Amino acid sequence: MSADSKTGLQLRSLIKKSGELEISLLDIPTPEPSADEVVVRVEASPINPSDLGLLIGAADMTTAKASGTKDAPVITAKVPEAAMRAVAGRLDESMPVGNEGAGVVIKTGTSEAAKALMGKTVAMIGGAMYAQYRTIGAGDCLVLPEGTTPAEGASCFVNPLTSLGMVETMRREGHKALVHTAAASNLGQMLNKICLKDGVALVNIVRSPQQSEILRKIGAKYVVDSTSPTFMDNLTNALVETGATIAFDAIGGGKLAGQILACMEAAINKSAKVYSRYGSSVHKQVYIYGGLDLRPTELNRTFGMAWGVGGWLLFPFLQKIGMADAFKLRQRVVAELKTTFASHYTQVVSLQEALQLSHIAVYAKRATGEKYLINPNKGG
Amino acid sequence: MSADSKTGLQLRSLIKKSGELEISLLDIPTPEPSADEVVVRVEASPINPSDLGLLIGAADMTTAKASGTKDAPVITAKVPEAAMRAVAGRLDESMPVGNEGAGVVIKTGTSEAAKALMGKTVAMIGGAMYAQYRTIGAGDCLVLPEGTTPAEGASCFVNPLTSLGMVETMRREGHKALVHTAAASNLGQMLNKICLKDGVALVNIVRSPQQSEILRKIGAKYVVDSTSPTFMDNLTNALVETGATIAFDAIGGGKLAGQILACMEAAINKSAKVYSRYGSSVHKQVYIYGGLDLRPTELNRTFGMAWGVGGWLLFPFLQKIGMADAFKLRQRVVAELKTTFASHYTQVVSLQEALQLSHIAVYAKRATGEKYLINPNKGG
Repeated sequence: MSADSKTGLQLRSLIKKSGELEISLLDIPTPEPSADEVVVRVEASPINPSDLGLLIGAADMTTAKASGTKDAPVITAKVPEAAMRAVAGRLDESMPVGNEGAGVVIKTGTSEAAKALMGKTVAMIGGAMYAQYRTIGAGDCLVLPEGTTPAEGASCFVNPLTSLGMVETMRREGHKALVHTAAASNLGQMLNKICLKDGVALVNIVRSPQQSEILRKIGAKYVVDSTSPTFMDNLTNALVETGATIAFDAIGGGKLAGQILACMEAAINKSAKVYSRYGSSVHKQVYIYGGLDLRPTELNRTFGMAWGVGGWLLFPFLQKIGMADAFKLRQRVVAELKTTFASHYTQVVSLQEALQLSHIAVYAKRATGEKYLINPNKGG
Repeated sequence: MSADSKTGLQLRSLIKKSGELEISLLDIPTPEPSADEVVVRVEASPINPSDLGLLIGAADMTTAKASGTKDAPVITAKVPEAAMRAVAGRLDESMPVGNEGAGVVIKTGTSEAAKALMGKTVAMIGGAMYAQYRTIGAGDCLVLPEGTTPAEGASCFVNPLTSLGMVETMRREGHKALVHTAAASNLGQMLNKICLKDGVALVNIVRSPQQSEILRKIGAKYVVDSTSPTFMDNLTNALVETGATIAFDAIGGGKLAGQILACMEAAINKSAKVYSRYGSSVHKQVYIYGGLDLRPTELNRTFGMAWGVGGWLLFPFLQKIGMADAFKLRQRVVAELKTTFASHYTQVVSLQEALQLSHIAVYAKRATGEKYLINPNKGG
C-alpha cells in the first residue's frame, strides 16, 4: 500500500495469447484530475457477477495457482482452448476491473463542480474500481446522503438499476407481471422489495428450499424451486395466477429459459378456447442477463411461435429510455438506499485478500448468498 | 370420388388420447354457400412444411401403418409420450388440413361479389384445402389472372408472403441484408429471386454441395454450406461482405441459430476498435420460422449480449403491418406469379395417393427439393 495518493494499487486481469489468465496488483501513478475531475479514495467495491466475466474471463479456475508475494500476489489459471475465441478481443491487454464502487473525494480539479465534491462520500460507476484511487469525472459521481458509508453506497448502480430496469422493461413491453431466476440473489431480493412496494406480481425461481425460505421471509408470495419434482406444475400455476409473460434469467445455460416459456404457454392455453397448431398468439419473452450456468441455452420449442429469447444489459437499456428517465431511476435508488436497495455482503476483503485462492474459490462459484465487497484501502 | 359436388372427400387428421395418430378421408356434405360465399372445386393444394405440423403432428412416422381400402385408405402411427403435451389442445378432434389451394368456382351465393366469381380460377387460404370442395367467403378468394392454372396458383400465399415478409421485417427492423437457412427450398429460391430483384444482399445457408449448385444457377451470390469444414469462416466472410445482422431459420433445432449469431458477432468485431466484455452493441437477430430439425435449439451464447432469437409467423406479421401494407404484398404476388413466385412440384398426387406410405415417407422427410402438390379431384 502506498503511503500517499500519488500512486496506488490497481487490480489487473490479463489473458495472454498463450491461453493463460494472470490476475495481479500493479502500483500505478494516480492520474492528476483535470479541471472537471476528482480523485476518489475507493473504500468499497462489490464483486458482482458482471465483474467476474472480466476478472476471470473464461478461465478454468480449478487450474488456478497462486504465486508472487503476500503484498503482490499473482494468480494464474488456464483458459480452455474452446473459450479463447470469445476473449479474442482482449488478448495480451492488461485490464482494470470493478464496475462500481464508493469512496471519499480526496483531491479535485479546478472547476466549481469538482471542488464542491471535496471530502464527500460518493458512489461511482465506470470500471477500474478495484483500485486504491480512482480519478473520475465529477459528473460521474453520485453524492451519497449525509451519514451513508462507502460500503452502504458501493452497490448503488448495477443491482438497483438492473432490478428497476427489469420492472421498467416489463411495463414498457406490455406485460403485467414478472418472472425472475436465481431469485434469492442480492439482486433478486432487491427486485422483490421493488415489486412488493410497486404492487407488481413477481414469480421467483430458486434452486433450493433454503433459497425459498430467504425469499418467503422478505415477503415473497410466489416462490418455486426448480429442484422440486413438481417444478413445472408449480411454475405453471404461479403463471396462471400472476399472468406473467416476461422473465429475466440470470442462469442462461441449460433448459430453464425454455421451461419458463413452456410453462407460460401452458398457463396461457389453460384459458384457450380453440386449438391453434402454432400455439397461443400471446408473446412470451425471456431476457438472459447473466450466465451463472455457462452451458448452452437449450430451447425445446414446445411453446408455440410467439416467443423471444434475448440478451438484456443495463447500459443499452438506460440508453434506450433516455437521460431523463434514467435519472429518475437513479433518484429513486438514492432515496431508498438503506431500505429497498440495501446490499448485504458476507465478506469484506482487501485487494490482496481478493487474490487468495481460498476467497476466489468462493466468489468465482457465483453462489447465491455469497457476496464479496472489496475495500482497496483495507490493510492486506 | 363423388359424382356431383353435394358431397366430397376431405382429408382428416386425428390424434387420439391413446397416443395414436389417424389420417383418413371422410366423405362429407359440401356446405351450401351463404349469400357471400362460393363453392370451389379444389384442384391444387401444396403440402407445405407448415401443413405437416397439423397433418402428422408429432407422430413418429417410422411407426406408420396403412389400413382401410384403396378408395378409403387409413394411416395410423404412434405419437411418442413426450410429444403428447404439445398436442394436448387437439386430442380426439378430427381436424381438416391444408392451408392454401386453388381451384374453380362451381357454385355461388346470391351476392353480386359471389356471383361475379362463377367459373373463375381462384386461389384461397384458410385451411381444409385437402378436400374436393371448399365453401369459402368470396372475399377470401384471390382471382387468378386469365390463363393461370390452379396448379400455378396453388401456392399463392404461404411461400410468397412469407418470403416477402422476411424482406419487409429486415427493412422494418433496421437491418440491411439477410441470412436464410434451408435456403435451396422452394421458399428459399423465391427469396433469392425477390432479393436479386430488390437489390438486397442475401446469405444462403444450405446443407449440401447440390443445394449450393441449385442456388448458384438462379444467380445467388452468397451461398455457404453448413456441412463444409470451413463453414464458420465462410459464413463470417459472407457476413462481413453483406453486413447481414438478421436471419430467418427454417431448421430451428441444433446449433445453427447460435452459430449464425456467433458469426455475425465475429463479423462485427472484425471492425471493432475497443474490447467490450459484453460483446458488440449491434443487435443480432435470428427468427425461427420452421422446425425442420425437431431437436432443441442450442445457443452457446458466445455472441455478446445484443442478440435475440424468436419465433416468426406469417399471420401475426401480416396483422402487425396492417391491411393496406399486406394488400400491397398480395398484389405483388399476383403480378409476379409466373416469375418471382413460381413454385415447382416434384409430385402431383390424389388424396388417396397422399395417404400411401411410400409417398408419406418422402414428404414427411421435409427434404429440400421434394415438393408435393395434392389434386383432390385427380382420380386415386
